[in-house]
Amino acid sequence: MQLEKYQIQSHNEPQLSAHYRKLAYLEEELGDTEQLIEKLTAFQIAIPSWALGTGGTRFGRFSAGGEPRNLEEKINDIGLLHALNRSSGAISLHIPWDIPQDTLAVKELAASHGLRFDAMNSNTFQDQQNQEFSYKFGSLQHEDPKVRKQAVEHNIEVIRQGIELGSKSLTVWLADGSCFPGQLNFRKAFQHTLDSLKEIYAALPDDWKIFIEYKAFEPNFYSTTVGDWGQSLLFANKLGPKAYTLVDLGHHLPNANIEQIVSLLLMEEKLGGFHFNDSKYGDDDLTAGSIKPYQLFLIFNELVEGMDTRGMDHAEDLGWMIDASHNVKDPLEDLLQSVEAIMLAYAQALIVDRAALQTAQIENDVVRCQEILQNAFRTDLRPLVAEARLRSGGALAPVELFRSLQIRSQLIQERGLFTMATGL
Amino acid sequence: MQLEKYQIQSHNEPQLSAHYRKLAYLEEELGDTEQLIEKLTAFQIAIPSWALGTGGTRFGRFSAGGEPRNLEEKINDIGLLHALNRSSGAISLHIPWDIPQDTLAVKELAASHGLRFDAMNSNTFQDQQNQEFSYKFGSLQHEDPKVRKQAVEHNIEVIRQGIELGSKSLTVWLADGSCFPGQLNFRKAFQHTLDSLKEIYAALPDDWKIFIEYKAFEPNFYSTTVGDWGQSLLFANKLGPKAYTLVDLGHHLPNANIEQIVSLLLMEEKLGGFHFNDSKYGDDDLTAGSIKPYQLFLIFNELVEGMDTRGMDHAEDLGWMIDASHNVKDPLEDLLQSVEAIMLAYAQALIVDRAALQTAQIENDVVRCQEILQNAFRTDLRPLVAEARLRSGGALAPVELFRSLQIRSQLIQERGLFTMATGL
Amino acid sequence: MQLEKYQIQSHNEPQLSAHYRKLAYLEEELGDTEQLIEKLTAFQIAIPSWALGTGGTRFGRFSAGGEPRNLEEKINDIGLLHALNRSSGAISLHIPWDIPQDTLAVKELAASHGLRFDAMNSNTFQDQQNQEFSYKFGSLQHEDPKVRKQAVEHNIEVIRQGIELGSKSLTVWLADGSCFPGQLNFRKAFQHTLDSLKEIYAALPDDWKIFIEYKAFEPNFYSTTVGDWGQSLLFANKLGPKAYTLVDLGHHLPNANIEQIVSLLLMEEKLGGFHFNDSKYGDDDLTAGSIKPYQLFLIFNELVEGMDTRGMDHAEDLGWMIDASHNVKDPLEDLLQSVEAIMLAYAQALIVDRAALQTAQIENDVVRCQEILQNAFRTDLRPLVAEARLRSGGALAPVELFRSLQIRSQLIQERGLFTMATGL
Amino acid sequence: MQLEKYQIQSHNEPQLSAHYRKLAYLEEELGDTEQLIEKLTAFQIAIPSWALGTGGTRFGRFSAGGEPRNLEEKINDIGLLHALNRSSGAISLHIPWDIPQDTLAVKELAASHGLRFDAMNSNTFQDQQNQEFSYKFGSLQHEDPKVRKQAVEHNIEVIRQGIELGSKSLTVWLADGSCFPGQLNFRKAFQHTLDSLKEIYAALPDDWKIFIEYKAFEPNFYSTTVGDWGQSLLFANKLGPKAYTLVDLGHHLPNANIEQIVSLLLMEEKLGGFHFNDSKYGDDDLTAGSIKPYQLFLIFNELVEGMDTRGMDHAEDLGWMIDASHNVKDPLEDLLQSVEAIMLAYAQALIVDRAALQTAQIENDVVRCQEILQNAFRTDLRPLVAEARLRSGGALAPVELFRSLQIRSQLIQERGLFTMATGL
Repeated sequence: MQLEKYQIQSHNEPQLSAHYRKLAYLEEELGDTEQLIEKLTAFQIAIPSWALGTGGTRFGRFSAGGEPRNLEEKINDIGLLHALNRSSGAISLHIPWDIPQDTLAVKELAASHGLRFDAMNSNTFQDQQNQEFSYKFGSLQHEDPKVRKQAVEHNIEVIRQGIELGSKSLTVWLADGSCFPGQLNFRKAFQHTLDSLKEIYAALPDDWKIFIEYKAFEPNFYSTTVGDWGQSLLFANKLGPKAYTLVDLGHHLPNANIEQIVSLLLMEEKLGGFHFNDSKYGDDDLTAGSIKPYQLFLIFNELVEGMDTRGMDHAEDLGWMIDASHNVKDPLEDLLQSVEAIMLAYAQALIVDRAALQTAQIENDVVRCQEILQNAFRTDLRPLVAEARLRSGGALAPVELFRSLQIRSQLIQERGLFTMATGL
Repeated sequence: MQLEKYQIQSHNEPQLSAHYRKLAYLEEELGDTEQLIEKLTAFQIAIPSWALGTGGTRFGRFSAGGEPRNLEEKINDIGLLHALNRSSGAISLHIPWDIPQDTLAVKELAASHGLRFDAMNSNTFQDQQNQEFSYKFGSLQHEDPKVRKQAVEHNIEVIRQGIELGSKSLTVWLADGSCFPGQLNFRKAFQHTLDSLKEIYAALPDDWKIFIEYKAFEPNFYSTTVGDWGQSLLFANKLGPKAYTLVDLGHHLPNANIEQIVSLLLMEEKLGGFHFNDSKYGDDDLTAGSIKPYQLFLIFNELVEGMDTRGMDHAEDLGWMIDASHNVKDPLEDLLQSVEAIMLAYAQALIVDRAALQTAQIENDVVRCQEILQNAFRTDLRPLVAEARLRSGGALAPVELFRSLQIRSQLIQERGLFTMATGL
Repeated sequence: MQLEKYQIQSHNEPQLSAHYRKLAYLEEELGDTEQLIEKLTAFQIAIPSWALGTGGTRFGRFSAGGEPRNLEEKINDIGLLHALNRSSGAISLHIPWDIPQDTLAVKELAASHGLRFDAMNSNTFQDQQNQEFSYKFGSLQHEDPKVRKQAVEHNIEVIRQGIELGSKSLTVWLADGSCFPGQLNFRKAFQHTLDSLKEIYAALPDDWKIFIEYKAFEPNFYSTTVGDWGQSLLFANKLGPKAYTLVDLGHHLPNANIEQIVSLLLMEEKLGGFHFNDSKYGDDDLTAGSIKPYQLFLIFNELVEGMDTRGMDHAEDLGWMIDASHNVKDPLEDLLQSVEAIMLAYAQALIVDRAALQTAQIENDVVRCQEILQNAFRTDLRPLVAEARLRSGGALAPVELFRSLQIRSQLIQERGLFTMATGL
Repeated sequence: MQLEKYQIQSHNEPQLSAHYRKLAYLEEELGDTEQLIEKLTAFQIAIPSWALGTGGTRFGRFSAGGEPRNLEEKINDIGLLHALNRSSGAISLHIPWDIPQDTLAVKELAASHGLRFDAMNSNTFQDQQNQEFSYKFGSLQHEDPKVRKQAVEHNIEVIRQGIELGSKSLTVWLADGSCFPGQLNFRKAFQHTLDSLKEIYAALPDDWKIFIEYKAFEPNFYSTTVGDWGQSLLFANKLGPKAYTLVDLGHHLPNANIEQIVSLLLMEEKLGGFHFNDSKYGDDDLTAGSIKPYQLFLIFNELVEGMDTRGMDHAEDLGWMIDASHNVKDPLEDLLQSVEAIMLAYAQALIVDRAALQTAQIENDVVRCQEILQNAFRTDLRPLVAEARLRSGGALAPVELFRSLQIRSQLIQERGLFTMATGL
């Protein structure tokens, strides 16, 4: 199914006067908001192709129905999201789940929705049918050079696919690690991984980036070979200028100060991008901003400060992606909620009074520092985000429109109740 | 396949003289060890029927081959384990994965291996085919009385199955909880769960126990309705004298003092049993004693002290079960390692000098308290555990014998390489 | 120093028109806000007498100057806070730090500031000069009955002091526990503590409450004898109807779901009160709402729901206290920030659409549940809290007024730069 | 007081026959143990001068009596420890707590006990009397260059002191960080710290090392500027070849895999040394090996493997120090227990069958890998450690001898009951 412009317009119209009233109030508070709205409009968050179906745990999965059965339907789903919020204008593919049969057609389909192809994702954490060697004991870290070779070649194949689609980056998330003390020689695992990454790196086009994602634990439960930002940064530095660290918000030990990590990676010019989600315990992959919205704001606060200091373009110079799982919500509604939360956090970071903050920091006026941040966070910026959506042709209330149009029912009708999208 | 006595004997014989030398040394250190060996011999750890195949995570599962395809083969696997170590003389079934087709034959098969049926486990964390209502939003906690009724009836059916098999207890582990703030009214969820448990409780025979297992998180990632020992104890107290708390070592928040929980539950006469495993991060379900062996000893230290104080029978009065998952090891070898670690921790707890410890505690002689516990833990008690095994007809080195007999290869030959046992 | 009415008025006046504009906007969004403002006005948060000076860690303390040197000056400080925000109308004393020399004069002084005496706090975690027995190895848990007796008598003396001052409750926070495995027999420690608490309980007047505070760790680093809500509830239930659990937000293991604990304690009619603060790692005692403001809101969400369900009076039926430490901020400014954050969270909880939430919960509409909570949290309710302050005679911007009047400088002039208040 | 040789001999004599019996048994198990004993004999653990008195928390300190009142008495205490266990042959000083009045005399005193001066420690986490600028808001990170200069100069002064004493390294532990979001610009804090460290580095003699210690939190409760190994390594790499990372076992987030960090730092040739202690929750500073002895072994397992691979000398090429606090034990007894636990873990690591482990790792034989490590850990190596002690002239049972000679009573008689050593 496709969303028509008139549907959005007739959804927006009755809400316009209330919306403009709120916006006017905000402008009275904030002064000129044009620049803010422009930045919000430009900001696009890539949707992962593997998050369009119901997620699950090792204990089970409860499908919601109407899940996309192939790459084309996934693109259509993201097209729907983008039509609703105009902030989901990119797709992050996962190979081998999303190998295009007809690349040209796929590109045209994406373009018709206004979507570009963000980072490509390889998969060496599962065995595929007909795969020669198993990744049970790792892929790029494996003791057996034949396994490493297979994994390297898979990554190079993913780059190849990405080139055809117009992507510019490869995200390598490795499940590699160990479940028990003694299982691995950590140093050898690191060095095998480094050697493998070097081969992949050598296959990267000049204008590509490789993102080295780190994760503290799961699916390995004793060690992970790219386990924290320190390890990822070591790899990125040893690889070269096209290699960067990717931060997934759920991939840390309890209580980690993620915003500090972000700041330091920007300082080192090695922050590559983000996987947004939220969590209470581990890699829970919950809706962005649903558990710790203040942390999300603090992260954006560092991003904006650090990128501005380096003269980076907010929308272009980092990879912004969601990586969430939707076990109990409609996946599309959940993604709409995630995007909204991310946009809000970004907007809050944009209105932080930087000059005042800097002064307060220099004076060690901790009370004032806190007030400046809290002032931004406590301001209700939803009208601003809505306005950015409105101007780009999106819906004032995307979830409401999704529901009133009964999109899920239509998808179930089209695709069936028992479809299950590839993903986790 | 079946293990023959002569196979065990010819494995043991060449090791006997070394074994007796070590045992003699230990007796010189410890004095008379007869009582210790008797207690170790009597101690039996139930093997869960769902842990005989390769485990996995939401990211995948890498099968090892030769996994049992049905209940009979599972019983045979546990029979093998028990033949090897003589300490795995019980089986804990999981319904609906293990519904016996021919109860009598199943009982006879188990008896032929010397196995009894320990706690039965119900499953309301997954939807089964042809199930009328989904457990996506919980089972015993569910807002819809029809869902609760279905879940209650399932549990009663499990009791019925257990009665026929000669089991005496039901373990209820609930995945019930929520993934997001606001999803549940905690109080209503608690009360629905209590009402449902009351109905199940009413169906319990007089000589049965019901174990209420708690878990901090997963598969729900915001709240669990039976989330900690405090909640489980509330339920157990409200239900009545047949209701107990079950402690799974992996089901706590980081850094929890599990041994203190064990001590207090024994004090309240509400400790029902154990699920043994080990973990570094969450419910990692690793081999018992593989990560924190000192913690395992400290738990047994409380068990022995608390049970002795109440005049409880170590072997009979609590339910001892393994609940682990084997992602990278042969499941049977892994279970042998778990049982060995549990037996060692139990033996270490048995040799703690209780009188000296009590004196040191009364005198606040913390240095001495530590020395007394460390002295027990640092003593190498493997010969004692081996002797208990030897006397019961088991193997001196179970893993070695398992390997030298090439049992896994034989199982693969019998059952095939691509079998996958039911479980997690 | 004393704050004069005209000082507050001349601070407020120039801000009034902006304030009323914001308030009007909010009323347009929320509808009638009178009831909300009334509830906010009635809500009073007790200030702990031990938090008026600079806090510290074992690594040191960096005083800010002008700290109160005695009970009278502490009352004056809280009087100042209350004059500024009209929400700090209670004081929580700590014995032996705050033993009144002239009870009548102290009561009059407090009354002159509009302050009442909230929960009294005993101290058995430090040795006082001339104390006969040491609490090095615990107090109410101690093996030696003479130590327990001394600690019990101290608590009874605190009750006596409280009666004279008009307090109605005693908070017992015990540092009791152990630093090493084996140091304590957990069961005996529990039972000694229970026996001691029973003696204290017996000395409670009929209209008093005793709050049993729990804490996971620190200053003991292996076990705490009242370590979690489950243990506190066991004590409270064994003691009787005047005994309640007290929740301090910083006293949990990592990732604990505190709001669920709050809900269940209310269900059990055993929630007694709160110590507000915030933390990232342990008992960090940071400003309320400075790290996890959404969690603070979720806790209030449960409080409002649970109290309304039981027909409890928000302002009267629980003890609301701050328990924070101010290592790098001016203590009075920090307390103003804490009170503001607490009031905001309370206000957010008050505007949650309860009927819609209940419907969404019944329908398992998780997306909607989240939206309802987020809608309340994202609404900027600062004008409402300010209006409550204004109507009660407080300042629109308390921290600003505190600064513009140079109150700290005046306090330093009065009291000196190197004063150090009793506390932690 | 001084321990006489004959006192040790008369303590050892009655235990010799039992000791040799145990040793003989062990030799039967392990084969030739000469090399092991030599390595154990050579291994020396530095005792921190600040850990000779009773430790405490922000909640209080309970002195034990007889604490050393000055540097000479501290050296005497360590001399006592070394006489007892012959493994504590080094002292780690803390400036300004331990500024020698007469350097020559101090060196002679240390030499008379067979002690050398290990790493020097600076202190910029507390303000000293008469200090011009406060470290309330940090030292090397401070916004104010005058504060940084003062802190740099202090460190250079510590180096100067160390040179005179014959030390060869400086440990820099910084409390620098922040308590609240917004307080610091993380990047500027990092860069100020780096600039300051460069100045200190420039003052290092050629044969000195500087150890950059990291810590996740406390005393700052939101961020630490050298917060994890990744940050420390960044600093060390930017400083140059004399800069190394120092690992304190208590300075990590929950569940961190410290042994992996150790392995990678060795790989990067940037591991400088260790602070041994143990913990359950945070930086609990408990006796080494008292909570997680298996983790201590796993760390030594990586150390031995990594150092052997690089051809490093176990005893010489890293700094081995205890950094613990003794709140409820006699400090000297506690230190004896720590040293014993460290020696045991080191011995266990030495007997790991490296060749077999490497083979099992290459074959991904995870069961065998675990068995190899557990086999080493479960072997009772106390006789080996005792033999190393015996041969060096130490006591077979140091704590017993300490007690039977009533050393603490003598120290109290000499120094008084209410002395309090400098430290934490």
